Amino acid sequence: MKIAIAQLNYHIGNFEGNLQKMLAAVESAKTQGADLVCFGELAVCGYPPRDFLEFDDFIRQSYESIKALRHASRGIGIVVGAPTRNPFLEGKDLYNSAYLLHEGQVVGVQHKALLPTYDIFDEYRYFEPASEFRTVAFMGKKIALSVCEDIWNVGNENPLYTICPLDEMMHEKPDFIINISASPFSYTQAEERIHVVRTNVQRYGIPMFYVNHVGAQTDIIFDGGSLVFSAADGGQLYDEMPYFEEGLRLYELEEVIRGGREAGQPKDKIRLIHDALVVGIRDYFQKLNFKTAILGLSGGIDSAVTAVLAVRALGKEHVRVLLMPSQFSSDHSVNDARQLAEHLGIQYDIIPIKPIFETFEQTLQPHFQGAPFNVTEENIQARVRGILLMAMSNKFGHILLNTTNKSEMAVGYGTLYGDMCGGISVLGDVYKTEVYQLAAFINKDGEVIPRNSITKPPSAELRPDQKDTDSLPPYEVLDGVLYQYIERRQGPRELVEIGFDEALVRRVLKLVNTNEFKREQAAPVLRVSSKAFGMGRRMPIVGKYLS
Amino acid sequence: MKIAIAQLNYHIGNFEGNLQKMLAAVESAKTQGADLVCFGELAVCGYPPRDFLEFDDFIRQSYESIKALRHASRGIGIVVGAPTRNPFLEGKDLYNSAYLLHEGQVVGVQHKALLPTYDIFDEYRYFEPASEFRTVAFMGKKIALSVCEDIWNVGNENPLYTICPLDEMMHEKPDFIINISASPFSYTQAEERIHVVRTNVQRYGIPMFYVNHVGAQTDIIFDGGSLVFSAADGGQLYDEMPYFEEGLRLYELEEVIRGGREAGQPKDKIRLIHDALVVGIRDYFQKLNFKTAILGLSGGIDSAVTAVLAVRALGKEHVRVLLMPSQFSSDHSVNDARQLAEHLGIQYDIIPIKPIFETFEQTLQPHFQGAPFNVTEENIQARVRGILLMAMSNKFGHILLNTTNKSEMAVGYGTLYGDMCGGISVLGDVYKTEVYQLAAFINKDGEVIPRNSITKPPSAELRPDQKDTDSLPPYEVLDGVLYQYIERRQGPRELVEIGFDEALVRRVLKLVNTNEFKREQAAPVLRVSSKAFGMGRRMPIVGKYLS
Repeated sequence: MKIAIAQLNYHIGNFEGNLQKMLAAVESAKTQGADLVCFGELAVCGYPPRDFLEFDDFIRQSYESIKALRHASRGIGIVVGAPTRNPFLEGKDLYNSAYLLHEGQVVGVQHKALLPTYDIFDEYRYFEPASEFRTVAFMGKKIALSVCEDIWNVGNENPLYTICPLDEMMHEKPDFIINISASPFSYTQAEERIHVVRTNVQRYGIPMFYVNHVGAQTDIIFDGGSLVFSAADGGQLYDEMPYFEEGLRLYELEEVIRGGREAGQPKDKIRLIHDALVVGIRDYFQKLNFKTAILGLSGGIDSAVTAVLAVRALGKEHVRVLLMPSQFSSDHSVNDARQLAEHLGIQYDIIPIKPIFETFEQTLQPHFQGAPFNVTEENIQARVRGILLMAMSNKFGHILLNTTNKSEMAVGYGTLYGDMCGGISVLGDVYKTEVYQLAAFINKDGEVIPRNSITKPPSAELRPDQKDTDSLPPYEVLDGVLYQYIERRQGPRELVEIGFDEALVRRVLKLVNTNEFKREQAAPVLRVSSKAFGMGRRMPIVGKYLS
Repeated sequence: MKIAIAQLNYHIGNFEGNLQKMLAAVESAKTQGADLVCFGELAVCGYPPRDFLEFDDFIRQSYESIKALRHASRGIGIVVGAPTRNPFLEGKDLYNSAYLLHEGQVVGVQHKALLPTYDIFDEYRYFEPASEFRTVAFMGKKIALSVCEDIWNVGNENPLYTICPLDEMMHEKPDFIINISASPFSYTQAEERIHVVRTNVQRYGIPMFYVNHVGAQTDIIFDGGSLVFSAADGGQLYDEMPYFEEGLRLYELEEVIRGGREAGQPKDKIRLIHDALVVGIRDYFQKLNFKTAILGLSGGIDSAVTAVLAVRALGKEHVRVLLMPSQFSSDHSVNDARQLAEHLGIQYDIIPIKPIFETFEQTLQPHFQGAPFNVTEENIQARVRGILLMAMSNKFGHILLNTTNKSEMAVGYGTLYGDMCGGISVLGDVYKTEVYQLAAFINKDGEVIPRNSITKPPSAELRPDQKDTDSLPPYEVLDGVLYQYIERRQGPRELVEIGFDEALVRRVLKLVNTNEFKREQAAPVLRVSSKAFGMGRRMPIVGKYLS
């Protein structure tokens, strides 16, 4: 039996687009002699569909897609994910299901039992867990069909869950496992995925075909990396499909069972983040039908890295930048920014903000009652830049890319409605220390980002001789605390136990917690870590805890 | 037995504040002769604590509060809500529990079984459902203790759930029911609550004491309205505590059992919304320790209503306004705004934006390549106002109130980083047609809002002779479609079946869906309906559906 894995980039709610893409893959798989072709979790509607699932019309369209795929299943089996209406009065209205279609029929349906409801996941908001587990027969074989999380409680060892769906199927002696997933990228996810699939294959002694999505849905990026695991020799990674690319690959079941092949993709953290961000930008534009991006280049490292990623995602002819020096900007800054724009071959315009800033000062002077220059005037400058960028965006249809990094976003070192403007935040899940690593990665084969942008001390340049370290701990120290607090949910006691200075811990945690209001109004953040700002991290704004 | 209901305004994560408030209520209840005093769901930490629950330190502090309340329970029983660590390896880490404390001991703990995971609720993200249900003994009586949602599946008739916790307890023949809730306000919620409590009391034939929170936690407002229901005569609303006020009331159990009393609070929709918004503003300021508010007065009805609500929440000496006419503003507008400010006795400043706008025009002219005036220039004006308001906010510590209404927010008729600026959105869950009703309510005893602000056709005044109806359907029509789509989740087919014009439906739904990106960056919205923008409505941004 020849099994094809179709690793595709779906688009939430784009039923026609998703269907056409799947039908083309079915044809291609057939042409190549496949007996079975497998798509991802909720592939008909894209993942995560969120509250669209509450619209009956949305579910109706999902069923229409299943119907069309059923008709396309003459001569080939199709495994595909879709929502299913729960026919019982009790429980949530829907199931999250894997369908096996063949010869115009629905041959089998297996609902998902383990419904991730943590971090970015809200599945129990919509879905009823499965309570029945059966294999499905196909061409004389028995398949254990499963959806995503259902393989993540191997032998009931995941404390979150009390059921292990595959355990329930094993008395039927399936020949192999298919898991259809929508498993979002983080820079450690591919390794965890391989570990989990290996553990399943070792436990059950049969091969697994693991199908993932690829591409980004706003903030959530899917890296693909679909897996074929042989049970031979205690489990072999028979194949791992490429990251961040669509693809269709065929596997001969007998060969997979026989094994004797080990393959895999390279897993360098910074390269993975780089590639994920490029896909994140590209898909945000493609799926919203935007063509061109704009951003402000300050001469600093964050906007430089963002500009490079944008050019790699969209092409240099689709990226333009504004250089908006203030009276406090150094000559260096403008030169560094200009040099980068020239390296990249992108259109740049220089718009000094001094005249506008001065008009604001004059206008506000009677109302400011002689109060001295403070953060107010710094914010006015950042916001004038925001208006200029948004004006160019509005006039020419460019979409503004936000350049704030995760460290700044965490501690609120940024101006709401100023440098926090933008349609999508490119670096909002990348700590400043990681931004430096990205810059080094970008420059590895020659200087793209000017050396000076990398080596000079970070500064917002909103008052004379300003440095980030005037207000913040050094980033190497800050990022360490932030990582433990955000990604690892360590509280103040644990942080001190780990060895951080208590006063530092209090200061940083207070900054993080009292700046929740800014992040509430931030652009969606391309997620690359296990805990990004956004839907995956839900904090009260008026909360008093640690603030 | 004398039972006291303490209807209190908690603050998320403010363990010390919540504890002191409860200890004072315990003392007061004791002094008045109460045998038992009841607080709300998760009262020790406030509701909803969201991802703070993932911090062990946060749970530890909750336990410290329970310990302190236990020590305070000499001579009085205390019912209080708190998270409990799940001692079992399997399942979520916590339970959402009701404690009965007495004479320094934990006399009983009942966990919550029905975990709302819809709309604004994420309880299954954190909590394991209860599987055991027992009454607790107190002073010779048996109490059926329950937490919030656990009484919302009476006789298993709620399709969402498969367990009815009180049914499970009835074989123990409890004497009465205590339900501790954190039941957020919407303008229909008080009636639904009474209906549910009545249905329970009718089913079980015993009285219920229902304790709610009061006060706002950012967007989510609790209205109080705690209930005492007698089972006499098929269920009598023995008492309903006031809305939007803290209070402590004592009830003699024997008298409640005897019944013969019917009480209740008035439930006028617009008055409820008015009072909820006042509390929402007040608590946002109090809980974040802000003192003074600022907003832009345009002369239109939205900013007028917001200003009145702000004055009622904070006092006239704590509200100031800016009048920021552009070259397109009518004389009327400035006069109407000034007249309102004078009615209210609040500080106002007039800051024409023309000079700043012209500096922007001059600065951008070389880059705009002769493109004609369009929405770009409209947005620049709105954003200049945003900067001015934020500058005054930064300089003087005033918090900016956003004045966008729900209709505008739905269709994206507003400028991101312009009139969408603000710390909290006061009217973001109030449709334009309801804003008119609020204005009428405010003016019922004499003109507060100038008549002209109410009667003139709505306009953004960002280009000559602009009217909202140039871009949008009349609000009476628009709001009808929006209500069905947003609150009632009716899709395009159903909307046409209801009788809306198909072209109108497509146009409105497309506007709503393609403006998700703006709402993603909007201020938190004070929730007054059953479906507000914000955490309760989770929509993909790159979604293609209906857009």
